[in-house]
Amino acid sequence: MSCELCDAPGGVLLWQDARCRVILVDEPGYPGFCRVIWNAHVKEMSDLDAADRAHCMAVVFGVEQALRGLMHPEKINLASLGNMVAHVHWHVIPRFSDDPHFPQPIWGTRQRETRSTRKTDVGPLAATIAAALKNIN
Amino acid sequence: MSCELCDAPGGVLLWQDARCRVILVDEPGYPGFCRVIWNAHVKEMSDLDAADRAHCMAVVFGVEQALRGLMHPEKINLASLGNMVAHVHWHVIPRFSDDPHFPQPIWGTRQRETRSTRKTDVGPLAATIAAALKNIN
Repeated sequence: MSCELCDAPGGVLLWQDARCRVILVDEPGYPGFCRVIWNAHVKEMSDLDAADRAHCMAVVFGVEQALRGLMHPEKINLASLGNMVAHVHWHVIPRFSDDPHFPQPIWGTRQRETRSTRKTDVGPLAATIAAALKNIN
Repeated sequence: MSCELCDAPGGVLLWQDARCRVILVDEPGYPGFCRVIWNAHVKEMSDLDAADRAHCMAVVFGVEQALRGLMHPEKINLASLGNMVAHVHWHVIPRFSDDPHFPQPIWGTRQRETRSTRKTDVGPLAATIAAALKNIN
């Protein structure tokens, strides 16, 4: 069966190693929205062995730290859902009090039309993620 | 400031250790919906040190494994949001193709009114989680 995360990067590539990649999501109103995508086609986190699970989460938390340091969001949202694309991927979403859905999840009811002027600086974001992950095993 | 996850268990207690607890969420249409709640009032996962982060995720993945073994869901959804209650907690949600929102996130648009007869057997769920976590550090 065809899988969109097997067939394509899934966004602008920010970082990668042999096991996974970090991409920037193009979602209006959500600058800095990243995804950590496991390269192999695996459905659930508990289908990975403990070492791979730990590696995946270290990347997720490294991206969280990079986004916090660069963007100072009100909150970070982390989610691994995969109901439609059952290939392990983590949403790492910096949330701001003036974003379209705050304090609802981004999948909830839209709260406002405001669009801040905040934007994603791809180069610095990629560099900050690389620095956060430079000692990853 | 008062915090509802500091002031109360947050649901039916299924498992606990010194650092965190697992509770059953009472959400209509979502049998087996668990939360892993960090006991200390911490806002983000990256505010925990690496050992505590690893412990928290080991509990999340243990609950995932217990739910998969007992309930055979179509998919597991994992999420740490905290926009309204900024105290680390993880939603661990077994999803079924006939649940109210599938394949949308549970925070999205309701898809159907169907209510399956699936229910949560609290005793076996608590025992299965305890077994999954018996060797946790």
